[in-house]
Amino acid sequence: MSLYIAVDIGGTQTRAACYPADSLKPVRLSRTTTHAADPTDQRTEPLERIQDLIASIWPKRDSVRAISVAAPGPTNPYSGVVYQAPNIPSWEDVPLRQSLQERFNVPVEVGNDANLAALCEWKFGAGHGHRHLVYLTISTGIGGGVIIDDKLLLGVHGLAAELGHTTVVYDGPVCSCGQRGHLEAVASGTALAHWVEDQLSQGSSSILPLHRRITARMISEAARKGDQLSLAALARAGCFIGCALASFLHIFNPTVVVIGGGVSRSGPLLLGPMYESMQEHVIDPHYLEDLKLTTAVFGDKAGLVGALALAHTLHP
Amino acid sequence: MSLYIAVDIGGTQTRAACYPADSLKPVRLSRTTTHAADPTDQRTEPLERIQDLIASIWPKRDSVRAISVAAPGPTNPYSGVVYQAPNIPSWEDVPLRQSLQERFNVPVEVGNDANLAALCEWKFGAGHGHRHLVYLTISTGIGGGVIIDDKLLLGVHGLAAELGHTTVVYDGPVCSCGQRGHLEAVASGTALAHWVEDQLSQGSSSILPLHRRITARMISEAARKGDQLSLAALARAGCFIGCALASFLHIFNPTVVVIGGGVSRSGPLLLGPMYESMQEHVIDPHYLEDLKLTTAVFGDKAGLVGALALAHTLHP
Repeated sequence: MSLYIAVDIGGTQTRAACYPADSLKPVRLSRTTTHAADPTDQRTEPLERIQDLIASIWPKRDSVRAISVAAPGPTNPYSGVVYQAPNIPSWEDVPLRQSLQERFNVPVEVGNDANLAALCEWKFGAGHGHRHLVYLTISTGIGGGVIIDDKLLLGVHGLAAELGHTTVVYDGPVCSCGQRGHLEAVASGTALAHWVEDQLSQGSSSILPLHRRITARMISEAARKGDQLSLAALARAGCFIGCALASFLHIFNPTVVVIGGGVSRSGPLLLGPMYESMQEHVIDPHYLEDLKLTTAVFGDKAGLVGALALAHTLHP
Repeated sequence: MSLYIAVDIGGTQTRAACYPADSLKPVRLSRTTTHAADPTDQRTEPLERIQDLIASIWPKRDSVRAISVAAPGPTNPYSGVVYQAPNIPSWEDVPLRQSLQERFNVPVEVGNDANLAALCEWKFGAGHGHRHLVYLTISTGIGGGVIIDDKLLLGVHGLAAELGHTTVVYDGPVCSCGQRGHLEAVASGTALAHWVEDQLSQGSSSILPLHRRITARMISEAARKGDQLSLAALARAGCFIGCALASFLHIFNPTVVVIGGGVSRSGPLLLGPMYESMQEHVIDPHYLEDLKLTTAVFGDKAGLVGALALAHTLHP
């Protein structure tokens, strides 16, 4: 039997799984912390830890057709170089493909995790059967992936589809990237939390605690209990995302928009205002014709199954 | 010999030209006003006038391989239906391809003029040899066209690449489409003129006349003479366009950006601030690697030659 090995490198945790060529069910799955938790750990470098993790699930009898990796940052899928990984500060221009190819001697593919999540939803999930897909993942940051005519939008260095880093509020709040007014700066989980903290410190009433670090999850839970400030925060983020989605409809004219990421699990409290805002901001009803707006199917498995989808596509 | 007929329907003027299969030089070229100037004109409907124009240049001996038309508004290139044409109010869902096919009995292709201008610059002009191109035309409005992996970005109904209708200033000035804060609403020729008129009425000093309709051309000329208000207006528009271009780099990661349209002829006074702003707003220098920023080659022939490029592509 011939197997694929898929790897999802997260900021905190890295997972690797071994899949038969015709299945989404891994025959072997293992995980490790991306950074050594214990300073006496022999393997402290994330790259070494990833290699060990792959070795630990390497099949004894079966052959490996390809290794495919979802990387947590801007990545060049042609050269296999990870330009940056926000949660792995030591990574800059890391030749991930080359390192793994030298160590394991099988074909290696590398992609950006949000792009691969889009590929995953298109191939196996919420966007199956659609030729034009826009995927947005809303968590700490906002990532994107786009399928055009059944192909992943990559651009010349594979840096396309950074939908979270499009300016929506000119000269607006500072983004994680240092620029201002990006979608991520006004509607990510981090932006939600900042806004609520600001409102609390200005005296807004809420069941959320003053002078403590607020998270998007806390806001989501408070909103479900009817907390007005939290509801307003989600509605506000939904408005911005809906407005940006309208721009993405004008740019891509897709048939499906898939929303993933932790914050999207706030459900209708975020997605309702988002959908309304998208409809309000569209310039022509033709953009809404045959358009499906839906949530992602794969949740936090999107990176892993996305890496598998990439392997399927390139090494069928 | 086998010929192509290309047609460019403008708001004011419509042109048609007859091209040999291997040349960009028309063997026959004719034009007419899109609307009947004379009310006693027998042919008052734009569609009839276009048909007559095509008939007037129809070759006597040679055969016509295809007719290809650049339409001035959102157009479905698959069905050949023009959804709208801002300057032809009577046009709504006009089956342009079908009408012309029935009349002339040859294959007919229809495309949006900005998309075809992008195709034209990619195939024959400033973007030749590039696989990933972003084209922006800045005139009364702002239009766009995108080439990805040597293919025009169309989306499911051909409504993609409406780059002028992406939100840059959330809740900003009203756009021609009725929405707010689009790139077109803050940086088109119309937006330039509005801003200058506003500043004049608020007492800004300028060589431009108060209480008269200002045009982008007047601003451009005044700026060349050193008029500070006009220079500020062009710099301001350049800033917005540069910021939007940075977003488009993050979205498409192209190797070339081509700027066309009448307003772009203001030259460095607009393009300088635009370029600076684009560089400032980019999140990662990799987006600027191997990136060429250039002006369009074809000027007001872009629609006509774009229609020809489409015919070449689909009926080689």
